[in-house]
Amino acid sequence: MSPASPRAADIAAVPFDFGPLFSRTLPPPAAKWGGLQKYHFIGGNNDADQVPVDRLLAAATSVLQREGRNLATYNLLTGPLGYLPLRQFLVGKLKRDAGITCSADDILITSGSLQGLDLVNSVLTEAGDTVLIEQDCYEGSISRLMRRGVTPIGIPVDRDGMRTDAVANVLAELKQRGVRPKYIYTIPTVQNPTATIMSETRRRELLRLSEDYGVPIFEDDCYADLVWEDRRPPALYAMSRSGGVIYIGSFSKSIAPALRVGYIVANWNVMSRILAIKTDAGTGSLEQMVLAEFCPAHFHDHVGSLKKGLRVKCEALMEALAEQFGTAAEFDDPKGGIFLWVKLPDNVDTMKLRQAALADGVAINPGPEWSVDAAHARSRLRLCFASPSLEAIRDGVAVLAETCRREFGVPERSANVTR
Amino acid sequence: MSPASPRAADIAAVPFDFGPLFSRTLPPPAAKWGGLQKYHFIGGNNDADQVPVDRLLAAATSVLQREGRNLATYNLLTGPLGYLPLRQFLVGKLKRDAGITCSADDILITSGSLQGLDLVNSVLTEAGDTVLIEQDCYEGSISRLMRRGVTPIGIPVDRDGMRTDAVANVLAELKQRGVRPKYIYTIPTVQNPTATIMSETRRRELLRLSEDYGVPIFEDDCYADLVWEDRRPPALYAMSRSGGVIYIGSFSKSIAPALRVGYIVANWNVMSRILAIKTDAGTGSLEQMVLAEFCPAHFHDHVGSLKKGLRVKCEALMEALAEQFGTAAEFDDPKGGIFLWVKLPDNVDTMKLRQAALADGVAINPGPEWSVDAAHARSRLRLCFASPSLEAIRDGVAVLAETCRREFGVPERSANVTR
Repeated sequence: MSPASPRAADIAAVPFDFGPLFSRTLPPPAAKWGGLQKYHFIGGNNDADQVPVDRLLAAATSVLQREGRNLATYNLLTGPLGYLPLRQFLVGKLKRDAGITCSADDILITSGSLQGLDLVNSVLTEAGDTVLIEQDCYEGSISRLMRRGVTPIGIPVDRDGMRTDAVANVLAELKQRGVRPKYIYTIPTVQNPTATIMSETRRRELLRLSEDYGVPIFEDDCYADLVWEDRRPPALYAMSRSGGVIYIGSFSKSIAPALRVGYIVANWNVMSRILAIKTDAGTGSLEQMVLAEFCPAHFHDHVGSLKKGLRVKCEALMEALAEQFGTAAEFDDPKGGIFLWVKLPDNVDTMKLRQAALADGVAINPGPEWSVDAAHARSRLRLCFASPSLEAIRDGVAVLAETCRREFGVPERSANVTR
Repeated sequence: MSPASPRAADIAAVPFDFGPLFSRTLPPPAAKWGGLQKYHFIGGNNDADQVPVDRLLAAATSVLQREGRNLATYNLLTGPLGYLPLRQFLVGKLKRDAGITCSADDILITSGSLQGLDLVNSVLTEAGDTVLIEQDCYEGSISRLMRRGVTPIGIPVDRDGMRTDAVANVLAELKQRGVRPKYIYTIPTVQNPTATIMSETRRRELLRLSEDYGVPIFEDDCYADLVWEDRRPPALYAMSRSGGVIYIGSFSKSIAPALRVGYIVANWNVMSRILAIKTDAGTGSLEQMVLAEFCPAHFHDHVGSLKKGLRVKCEALMEALAEQFGTAAEFDDPKGGIFLWVKLPDNVDTMKLRQAALADGVAINPGPEWSVDAAHARSRLRLCFASPSLEAIRDGVAVLAETCRREFGVPERSANVTR
């Protein structure tokens, strides 16, 4: 039997070659998604048991019944800054929690604070620019700068936050070279990854330096709701007398990261430039509506109970590390948040440890990706304690210690057993 | 949580001057939002009466009760391409409606198809590049290219869509000059603003030209669900044998624009580059969950009844124009969608008409903003009929005719009355 002659559609065509058409500045292609690891200590995922599902659903019900038809209109009839009731909630929340006095027109709702990062970077920076940034810092903030061709100068962080003596030195030196940095980026309130809180004295010094040198502060307050103590220092935005601060925040850490709702606070001089390049026709409205309905009644109580649960997990992680790594794992007790920043012995290369641990089902964030100084961060790693269960924290740290001992010879003893 | 009160906050300070720090490539600052006009014929807003509020709420209830706790994890545990059940729905929908054979791994959920535009532009274009685009086209597609420093070459559109004879001429001429355009952008199925549908013959010709010249097609199918007739030609993506097509779609027109959910369909060679620059940690999950729950049972029926309502409004607009403008307003009966593309007499400058009409409470989209050929579009305008009520359509067109007569002397007669 001879095969039927193929129709035109069945004849194999030469595959189209996109290769020569790609922009020359692209990062390497993404890898296929590999799923979550059994012991998943990476990323900013939160505690699934603490998502306030019933109350979010009640909020969705009331707001959709009342205003669901407004979904037919971009920005829900309240303009490109975002859903007005959510901005109005934020006006009160920012005053109460961060000491910020602003109006709903100073707030732009964004698709997560990551869009805020992108928008502020686009408004202020070009290739060849320089910025100051905490030496150990959020990977996404660093990688965004690298992709834009902007040079980040790392400022060491101690237990009082970004070291302003170093900021002063760097600003003076840059000025001498005729360089005016575009901003000083800081996560002052529960820094990522060190979980420190910048002291009020440092905040005042940083603001003075910012004004003296005409370099604005870019304040990323996305973890600030998760301070263990009831009191936190006012935001730099609140303390500034000149208005030289751009502020971003997020509901990702306080409610749920998958919602993708953040915000920028800035004066109109800056906001009008940001808004002109926010060409996405608005941030997701359903999420804005649900948050605006949920938050006035429940935000404060929810965050209070969320923090209690996170603190329990944080202590479980610190205990597991002490038990499994002993003195080989050094860390400060975090001031809040969802991360622990851990120092292992100098011979441990956490980039290599990451690979070995992945093969054992443990995902960690290696320090060099969370720092502008790869050598300083070589034997450091970041562990998220919010997402794994208490059991996974204990078991995962035990597996990680075993991996680390096998690859680097430390810890010598785990759980009081010499191997 | 209460912050310490900021000291020295009342002392007047010199306002910080951001002026010298802004990137040199920014567009002009945004104007403050002026609210919606009484007769609002602009933008892509839809019919508020047709938002399926009850069913969206039922979907939200069932999906949140079942999976709400997954909001604690970025991308809802199903990876950076987006919520898997929504991608799975799209696999079936794209096969049924557009003839596209693809897998869930070929689909990326985006924050509206506008994010799709941005991502594809970032992957393929740099300043100095050239693309082909329908001469009269979506303002956002044109303005994005201009901002990137990419030159759009306009291709005339007739009742069968983009004219492939003109595409052939332009490609040949560019090749002679050594220019390889980065893509051919088209909205083939209910084009914006002309509301034409590209014929199957033209689609075949366009694909042949694309392959002959090695220039991919960028197919924007965001209005394709709103074809009046039950049958539409297959997508270019479906007809391509070489895989040289990147496809974007949207739920903005079929469900609700404020949701901000769109999607890209592309092979992994392209998708892996797109995914590497989608650094927003995912598209809003609540909307993806609600759509994935709503669509399998209700999408088809909902779109059927939505189209019937839109057709009634379309006819109301065409009747109102005929009554108020008579022969002064020329237009083709649209093949679907939410827009009418209207030609007024040559002496009408619709950029000026827009200003005069705004003062009278009527918002219109002037042709020159929806075209790469401002002279061709000078006396044209785009009217959205989906959002205003039937009464607002009739009254708004009457006011617009009065404004136009006052400013430009046409129409001479309105509603059979000589003025």
